Amino acid sequence: MQFELTILGCSGAIPAYNRHPSSHFLNYNGHGFLIDCGEATQMQMAKFNIRRAKLDHVFISHLHGDHFFGLMGLISAFNLNYREQPLNIYGPEGLEEIVLTHFKYSKTKLSYPINFMTTQDSRQEMILDLPFLTVESFPLYHRIPTTGFLFKEKKGLRKIVPEKILQYNIPVTEIAAIKLGGDYNDKNGTIVLNKELTKPPSKPRAYAYCSDTMYNEHLVEIVKEVDLLYHEATFKNEHASRAKDTFHATTIEAATIAKKSVAKKLIIGHYSARYEDLSEHLAECISVFPETLLAEEGKVYSI
Amino acid sequence: MQFELTILGCSGAIPAYNRHPSSHFLNYNGHGFLIDCGEATQMQMAKFNIRRAKLDHVFISHLHGDHFFGLMGLISAFNLNYREQPLNIYGPEGLEEIVLTHFKYSKTKLSYPINFMTTQDSRQEMILDLPFLTVESFPLYHRIPTTGFLFKEKKGLRKIVPEKILQYNIPVTEIAAIKLGGDYNDKNGTIVLNKELTKPPSKPRAYAYCSDTMYNEHLVEIVKEVDLLYHEATFKNEHASRAKDTFHATTIEAATIAKKSVAKKLIIGHYSARYEDLSEHLAECISVFPETLLAEEGKVYSI
Repeated sequence: MQFELTILGCSGAIPAYNRHPSSHFLNYNGHGFLIDCGEATQMQMAKFNIRRAKLDHVFISHLHGDHFFGLMGLISAFNLNYREQPLNIYGPEGLEEIVLTHFKYSKTKLSYPINFMTTQDSRQEMILDLPFLTVESFPLYHRIPTTGFLFKEKKGLRKIVPEKILQYNIPVTEIAAIKLGGDYNDKNGTIVLNKELTKPPSKPRAYAYCSDTMYNEHLVEIVKEVDLLYHEATFKNEHASRAKDTFHATTIEAATIAKKSVAKKLIIGHYSARYEDLSEHLAECISVFPETLLAEEGKVYSI
Repeated sequence: MQFELTILGCSGAIPAYNRHPSSHFLNYNGHGFLIDCGEATQMQMAKFNIRRAKLDHVFISHLHGDHFFGLMGLISAFNLNYREQPLNIYGPEGLEEIVLTHFKYSKTKLSYPINFMTTQDSRQEMILDLPFLTVESFPLYHRIPTTGFLFKEKKGLRKIVPEKILQYNIPVTEIAAIKLGGDYNDKNGTIVLNKELTKPPSKPRAYAYCSDTMYNEHLVEIVKEVDLLYHEATFKNEHASRAKDTFHATTIEAATIAKKSVAKKLIIGHYSARYEDLSEHLAECISVFPETLLAEEGKVYSI
């Protein structure tokens, strides 16, 4: 199953050096999930050949503009293209009011329904449960109500061992039941146990998105052992007091969360406009957590 | 005096082929005026080296998203850069409510004041009167309340004839008074009449912006003899019925307004996403009004 992340925007609040405000696109086997939607996200999607039609779920972490000023443009683009399938938008209180205030004056009647779901920043909760994936929101620690999002693949089916299928001459019609855990009864009444025919499924994968937040060790348990952790690192370590003042994190703090949570990989982003070159960001993180990558726009990260 | 227009966005409602939604930047001798502010306008300004600090006046023609979804980003960018001087925003009823609804949830307290002025689409009116320029709004004919904007240079000072200054040995301290129309009294009591020392000022220049509108001959009088007329031409002539249905104009209609108003030059834009190549747009306009130019992003048009 494809499970991959494309960075559409890796900038902090002030776009600079051709970096764009926050937006991540998650592709799970053709199902699209957009996480934050800074200004020009629709242009970034076009630039990186991401098909809007595949997108049914949009998650907004908080109502600072660099995380959602592209949402109205995306909603409009869907409408202008006569979208019919519902769009599900998850975000803090106020997002629906902002969208509806726009519609009031543009006299917009959409070609498709929007389902708004209000996230809340007081506790972790499941906000989406699909057959193959769940999404949870969880509290972050910023100046206004903010949540992160945790995408967890569901446990897959057991994997067939092809040689055994040949050995016992098992018909194709039986395969689905065996993947679900069933034993095989051949026509002579012999039972072949499932554990001989299959291997356990792959370990379910997880991606956690920690947009704007100050350092907080509560996050360690929530993002425990994820395959890919995105954690903002707006500032280098030398600007730690500025990070604290603005409720943001430093490189070292992001890497510490990754290390303590035993994440497989860390991606950092939301770079302040004061830094053009990001090599020190990377070096600082690697000093704590070697498996760190820089968020780079257009780059695809396999989970 | 510099009086020049930079096109930041020339696309219709659906951005395509790397064309961006509507936005024009007008520079009058270092004073900046932004006319419409589609999504990603702040990025386009950065791309084309337009300094935000020079911008004090923003004009929004109507509340369809492709004309103002970049405004919140621009307002935020000013705030993040600690702007102090007031920003004056002219637009239809509802714009202030939309902006304030954003602030309510982002808990934004701006570093600078915004003065909102509500335009109305029932009659032409003066909305800004500066020492060197006036701006008027005027009704357009679209699906929701929409205005165009007319920028008129004020009559300049008379121009000094340098040879006469030498001939009468006129001191520099007298020049300002002569430019204002005064005669020159030399120390012997001889009066040299102003008309001998000066030439009449250049004819004041004008730029008219007709954003989304269907063809309407009322515009001819309003934009009479402007030096540069921008008129949308969303559709080619073959799609005239689609233009009518959506309250937009065709190439031929835009060019007809330019011809009937005896404009010096016409710029067309707001191209529908159905057209990648625009050479036929240009050819159709030129067949009616030869002095037509295509709006191209980043291009500077001297007025």
